[in-house]
Amino acid sequence: MTHRFTGESEGYVRVSEASLRTVTESIFMQMGVPEADARLATDVLVSSDLRGIESHGVSNMLRKYVRDYRNGKLNPTPAWRIIRETPSTASIDADAGLGLIIAPRAMEIAIRKAQEVGIGMVTMKNVGHMGMVSYYPMMALSHDMIGLGMTSSPPEVVPTGGAEPRLGTNPIALAAPANRQIPFVFDAATSVVSNNKLGIARRLGVKLPPGWIADAEGTPLMREADPPPEGRGRANMLPLGSAPELSSHKGYGLGCVVEILSGILAGGGFGAAERKTGYSHMVAAYRIDAFMDTGEFKNTMDEWLKVLKETKPAKGETRVLYPGILEQESEEENRKRGIPLHRETVKWFSDTCSELGIEASVEEI
Amino acid sequence: MTHRFTGESEGYVRVSEASLRTVTESIFMQMGVPEADARLATDVLVSSDLRGIESHGVSNMLRKYVRDYRNGKLNPTPAWRIIRETPSTASIDADAGLGLIIAPRAMEIAIRKAQEVGIGMVTMKNVGHMGMVSYYPMMALSHDMIGLGMTSSPPEVVPTGGAEPRLGTNPIALAAPANRQIPFVFDAATSVVSNNKLGIARRLGVKLPPGWIADAEGTPLMREADPPPEGRGRANMLPLGSAPELSSHKGYGLGCVVEILSGILAGGGFGAAERKTGYSHMVAAYRIDAFMDTGEFKNTMDEWLKVLKETKPAKGETRVLYPGILEQESEEENRKRGIPLHRETVKWFSDTCSELGIEASVEEI
Repeated sequence: MTHRFTGESEGYVRVSEASLRTVTESIFMQMGVPEADARLATDVLVSSDLRGIESHGVSNMLRKYVRDYRNGKLNPTPAWRIIRETPSTASIDADAGLGLIIAPRAMEIAIRKAQEVGIGMVTMKNVGHMGMVSYYPMMALSHDMIGLGMTSSPPEVVPTGGAEPRLGTNPIALAAPANRQIPFVFDAATSVVSNNKLGIARRLGVKLPPGWIADAEGTPLMREADPPPEGRGRANMLPLGSAPELSSHKGYGLGCVVEILSGILAGGGFGAAERKTGYSHMVAAYRIDAFMDTGEFKNTMDEWLKVLKETKPAKGETRVLYPGILEQESEEENRKRGIPLHRETVKWFSDTCSELGIEASVEEI
Repeated sequence: MTHRFTGESEGYVRVSEASLRTVTESIFMQMGVPEADARLATDVLVSSDLRGIESHGVSNMLRKYVRDYRNGKLNPTPAWRIIRETPSTASIDADAGLGLIIAPRAMEIAIRKAQEVGIGMVTMKNVGHMGMVSYYPMMALSHDMIGLGMTSSPPEVVPTGGAEPRLGTNPIALAAPANRQIPFVFDAATSVVSNNKLGIARRLGVKLPPGWIADAEGTPLMREADPPPEGRGRANMLPLGSAPELSSHKGYGLGCVVEILSGILAGGGFGAAERKTGYSHMVAAYRIDAFMDTGEFKNTMDEWLKVLKETKPAKGETRVLYPGILEQESEEENRKRGIPLHRETVKWFSDTCSELGIEASVEEI
């Protein structure tokens, strides 16, 4: 299902990773973002494209960030600070900084706290979009820690039995290291799909599969449907589970869990209330040897991930995956062959660079 | 959907809560469980019945616990101990004690650690079933904390694209306090339904709704189906999302997250390997004022829960709920009117009491 929007589709070209990084950094810097921060934000965006998560990469997100720097919703030089702290926790007021720039710092704090007392968890309020959530949990891997991330976003998803959006797509991401196997990296909205997928479908002019949205009366559309009009809250997106008969109350409940841990607990209110920047986030790190021997943990992960991969495939399937495999395979391929971008995105970069007086350009391979 | 198995169905009677507690405690004590532990385990079971979660109450679970005490799988007098500890974490080896007895102690440790350093998280290995998972997170509420619980159970759920069970139903529960509103209490398997619901359907002789299980080749059955034969691993249960087209890879991934945090990290291996007691668990507590002002958090919860409840209902629905409302309403009703049990369960109690020489009996109201 995801594949209808990625890969070697018509209209895509491959561009060099280095040129994409240079251009993206330049655009952030033209927005007034300091160089180190621009490099960080670029790494989060390009990592997403490398891992095949186009929905959270440059094509879909960068133009929104540019718009929000220009309209003053985002602050390019935020004076972010820790406003409350304990040995295992911290709360950050991000001063309207972009999540891609604040969240890596928050995760560094969480990792340091986990080194000191076993677990670290950091919330962020008054903060912009965080991009691909799994970027931050993955920072924990090289420290022999498990990483977690969640974000509370503006309302687009209907509660089970409701006819109005009340929850964001509120994703959860978790990364855990293995020894020889590809690390486990889960990253998913608690809605059936992320909002960005609706935008991509709209741009490509394709229908939505059954079970993604409800009609205006709240009835889940269990057949193909036209993408809803652009704009937050104009779709009644469905929680994971799609319909009450398929336990959509669980997807709804998980979206609420994310709202509580990354939204309300961050002190910035909830998604269904107006928030200036729209978002709140949380990241956490768990030191493995706070619980057990790290080597034993990684070996058990290897054994378990192998058991998952070697599951007998269902009829018509060729292999069984676990979260993180496809993304790592994409990353290896895209590092070698270049990053796939739609021609429309390449044109946006070229137009934007002209407009901003940036000389660098995205180079097709 | 859940309602087809609960409430005022044919064959049910109401029994007094006090008599159910006395008889259940006596049965645990006849298994060699010390009185204080028997009282604790009884409270977890009866709380489940009070809250309308019959699938995890006395009718479905107690006979399994009795069987496992008798066959030596469970240890009535476990020498459980903390085998590793940091300021925010602890790992427990439960010495084959029942989860209903070990997990409340683990949650007390988590709460103490959260009081000291902000967060507390405790894993348990070599431990029996924990009953209704939300019991433990709810212990955090009176301490102005958020509580979390997860459990890794034996394999019954197929990975997306797989034809063999590899994951347990691996539930997640989270409780968060409010001020005037009913507390938020989420508790759900990461499969479409919990295993116990299949057993209840089998016992009542009703069909399963679409999307609960896959056939032997791994194809999701999106029509009504007969319950599978009794016994773990004999059904191919589906992860939340049911089918790949409805993002079942997310339910599968969430089941993996639970396996990592409550299974592998507990040091007792994973569910798809053989574990003597079958289970591993984790519980955690988050002190709200480690992140923000507690009063402000509870007031925001009130506001948000009200917004959820006041969502315009979908066509054909009368009200919108949030996790915890139905359970609290059941509890209030059942405390007044008695606990509903199927006649078959009342007979089991009477037979078991005769067999064990217990004089007390479950009293119908």
